[in-house]
Amino acid sequence: MIAEIINYGGSIRVPKSVEVAYSTPVLLKYNERIILIDPGDYVSFGFLEEYFESHNISLEDVTDILLTHLHLDHAYATKLFTNATIYIHAAYKSKPYNKFGLIKSKLYLEIINSWKNVVEIDAGVKLFDGKIHVFHTPWHAKEHCSFTIDTENLGRILYTGDIVMNRVEFYDIIRWLRNDDCARFINTIGRKCDYIVFTHDEYVKSSDYFRG
Amino acid sequence: MIAEIINYGGSIRVPKSVEVAYSTPVLLKYNERIILIDPGDYVSFGFLEEYFESHNISLEDVTDILLTHLHLDHAYATKLFTNATIYIHAAYKSKPYNKFGLIKSKLYLEIINSWKNVVEIDAGVKLFDGKIHVFHTPWHAKEHCSFTIDTENLGRILYTGDIVMNRVEFYDIIRWLRNDDCARFINTIGRKCDYIVFTHDEYVKSSDYFRG
Amino acid sequence: MIAEIINYGGSIRVPKSVEVAYSTPVLLKYNERIILIDPGDYVSFGFLEEYFESHNISLEDVTDILLTHLHLDHAYATKLFTNATIYIHAAYKSKPYNKFGLIKSKLYLEIINSWKNVVEIDAGVKLFDGKIHVFHTPWHAKEHCSFTIDTENLGRILYTGDIVMNRVEFYDIIRWLRNDDCARFINTIGRKCDYIVFTHDEYVKSSDYFRG
Amino acid sequence: MIAEIINYGGSIRVPKSVEVAYSTPVLLKYNERIILIDPGDYVSFGFLEEYFESHNISLEDVTDILLTHLHLDHAYATKLFTNATIYIHAAYKSKPYNKFGLIKSKLYLEIINSWKNVVEIDAGVKLFDGKIHVFHTPWHAKEHCSFTIDTENLGRILYTGDIVMNRVEFYDIIRWLRNDDCARFINTIGRKCDYIVFTHDEYVKSSDYFRG
Repeated sequence: MIAEIINYGGSIRVPKSVEVAYSTPVLLKYNERIILIDPGDYVSFGFLEEYFESHNISLEDVTDILLTHLHLDHAYATKLFTNATIYIHAAYKSKPYNKFGLIKSKLYLEIINSWKNVVEIDAGVKLFDGKIHVFHTPWHAKEHCSFTIDTENLGRILYTGDIVMNRVEFYDIIRWLRNDDCARFINTIGRKCDYIVFTHDEYVKSSDYFRG
Repeated sequence: MIAEIINYGGSIRVPKSVEVAYSTPVLLKYNERIILIDPGDYVSFGFLEEYFESHNISLEDVTDILLTHLHLDHAYATKLFTNATIYIHAAYKSKPYNKFGLIKSKLYLEIINSWKNVVEIDAGVKLFDGKIHVFHTPWHAKEHCSFTIDTENLGRILYTGDIVMNRVEFYDIIRWLRNDDCARFINTIGRKCDYIVFTHDEYVKSSDYFRG
Repeated sequence: MIAEIINYGGSIRVPKSVEVAYSTPVLLKYNERIILIDPGDYVSFGFLEEYFESHNISLEDVTDILLTHLHLDHAYATKLFTNATIYIHAAYKSKPYNKFGLIKSKLYLEIINSWKNVVEIDAGVKLFDGKIHVFHTPWHAKEHCSFTIDTENLGRILYTGDIVMNRVEFYDIIRWLRNDDCARFINTIGRKCDYIVFTHDEYVKSSDYFRG
Repeated sequence: MIAEIINYGGSIRVPKSVEVAYSTPVLLKYNERIILIDPGDYVSFGFLEEYFESHNISLEDVTDILLTHLHLDHAYATKLFTNATIYIHAAYKSKPYNKFGLIKSKLYLEIINSWKNVVEIDAGVKLFDGKIHVFHTPWHAKEHCSFTIDTENLGRILYTGDIVMNRVEFYDIIRWLRNDDCARFINTIGRKCDYIVFTHDEYVKSSDYFRG
C-alpha cells in the first residue's frame, strides 16, 4: 500500500464572517484499488483537481473512501467520486441532518444521498488485508474513528481525524498537559507509528516527538 | 425598492494553498419581487442561511438574480434559488466551461444547467421599472456588467462588480493613479451615486470621497 | 466593573504558508482603572486602534493587563501599553525564549523587556476587590490561567483562555465527549457563569447550553 | 546575480474583521551583497525565519533592501535587518505618517526610524552594475517603483510591485481588458522578461502568456 498526502488540511475561523476548514486528504494505492481518506470540502476541489489531473487519475477511478466522521469539511468532496464505497461508523445515522439549517441540511443530504454503497466500520475492524486498522475515537463526534495504515513508503501512519486537528493540540497532548482518553490514545498508538497525520495541519514524524 | 447588504464579500488568497473569494450579496425587495445581486460562492452559504432564516424568507421566494459576471465566487450560489430568473450579459455563453478542469468544469456546468430562465442584459438596459440601470463594464470579464440601483433606504447605489473589488483599488482610482476606462467610469458614475458597493469589501458612502 | 468585548478572536491556519491567530481582547473599566485581558497580536492592532480611537482612550490609559499565558497571539500587543502592569502566572519565566528561533525569540524578548511591572498570579488569587478570580488551568501552557469576572453589564464571565479556543471545542466538552480536567473545569465553572468568552471565537451565553 | 523567491506573498481580506497582506520577498546574491526586495510584514517573519535559519544566513548579513513602495505589508520587515541600506523613491517622504492612526502611525515611524541609510531611486536608475533597472510606476502609490532584475538562474525578472498584485489582475491586463498606463507597461516590459513576480501571488513564466 502506497500513501500520498494530497495536501495539508487547514482552517480559517474569522467569527461572524468566514469559517473555512478542509481536511487532509490521503490517497492510498493498493492492488487495483484507489482509496481516499477524508477527501475534504468544496474548498478542497482545487487541490483535488490539481492532483488528479497531474497524476492522470479520473474521479471515477476512486474505489473506496474512508471517513473519520461526517462533517462537511471532511466529507463534502465524497460527492465527486461516484463509484466509491464509503466506510464510516454507523453512529453517523443518528443525527437529524434535516434540521441542520436551511442550506446546511441540503448539503448533508446531498452527500449522503450520493453514496451508492456504504460499509459500516467499528473498533477493531481491519480493512484491505489488515493494512488498515480502525479505532473508535468518539471524542469529537459519536461516529468518529481514527485509522492506522501500514504503507510501503511512509511506514505505519496514524490518521488521527479531528481528535487532534493540528500540532498545537498535539504538543499539548505529548507533554501530557491533557489527561483524557484522547491523550492516552495518541500517546499510546502514536508512539507505535512512524508518521502522525493531522486533519488540519502538516503531519509529523513520530520519532521526532516520542522516544524509546 | 429596498436594498439590504447581506454581508460584505471578501477574499483569501494564499498561493498554492487556499483561494477563497466570495462576493457581496445584495437583496432587493420591490413589490412582490425578491431580487439578489451576485449571491456568492459555497462559502457564502453560511451568511445566506443566517439571513434567510432570520428574515423568514425561503430560498424559493427569490424571483430574480442579477449577475455581474459568471465566476464561481459570484454565481455558484445561484443553484440554491431554483425559482429565480437569471439576468446576465450574453457574452458569458462564449466561454469553454467544459475545458475549465476536471472539477471546475463540473461546477460551472452544474450552475448553468440549474438556471431555468435566463434574461440577457446589455449596456443601457433598464430593469424593474427603471430602478436598475445596466452598464457593460468588460474590464474583468467580457460579460461583466455593473449596476446602479435606485433605493428608498440607501439612495442610489453603484454595484461595481469586480471592476473594483475593494477599497484599495477604489483609493487608487479616486486619486486618478489609474487613467483607464474603469477609472473614468467609477469617477463619473460613482460620483452621482450615494453608495458604492464593492464585491470583496465593505461599501463606502460616495460623499466621503467625491465633492461637489 | 464594566466589560467590553473589543472584537472576537480568530485563527487562520494554512500549513506551510500562513498562520495567524489573535485572541479576544476584553476591556474592563473599574473605578479609575482600565484593564485589558489578552490584548492580542500584531494583527489585532487594527481592532485595538479602531476601538481606542472611537472611544477616545489613549494607549497610555491602560493600567493593567491580565494574560492567560505568554503566547504571541495573546501577548504581543502588550508592548503598546507602556503604563500597564502585567498579571501572569510565574511559570512563564521557565521557558527558554532565547531559543525560540532567529526572529521569534526577538519578539518574545521585546515584549517581556517592555513590561515595567509584573504581578505574579496563581490559583485562588482574587484581583480588583474580588471581582476577578484566577484559576490555574495548565492544559495548554504551564503558566495558563483562566478568569471569572463579575461585571455589571454581562453578569459573571468565564474567560477561558486557550483551554477552549472555540465553540467546536466547547461543544465537544459540554457533550462530555472529552473527560479530562479541562472538561470538568468548564462544565463546573462555566455552568455558574452567565457568559463564556473564548479566545478564538464568539462568546456564548451559558444558559443556552447548561440547564439548572 | 542569483535570485531566490523566499515565499509567495498573499492576502486575506475579511472586511470589518481581518486584513492580512504580505508581499513576495525575493533574495538576491551578488558578489558579497545580500539584497532583499519587499521583505514583507509581521506575518512574514515566520517565512523569513525559516529561510534564514535553513540557509545559515544571519539577519545582519543583509546589505541592501529595495522597496517598491512604503506600505506595511511590504516594508514592516525592514526593521529586522539592521545593517541594510534602503532603496526607495523619494516621494515616500511626502506622506503624513504621524496622522495614520493611533497605532499605525507608530508602526510607520518605527520602521522609518530604524533605517540607517537610505538611497533614493527614480525612473532610469540602474543598480548593482546595471543588473537591476528601476521604473517609476506610480499607479498604486506615488513613490511606487517596479524593477527588472538580470539573474543567472531565472533570466530577467520583472518584479511588479503592487501595480499587479496577483494573477487575476495579470490576466485582465494581458487580455487588454484594461487599457491604462499600467497595462501598457506590463504588456511591454513583461513581454521582454522571463519571469513576472507578483507581490501577492505565485510568479508566472512570461513565455506562457506572451508570444513572439
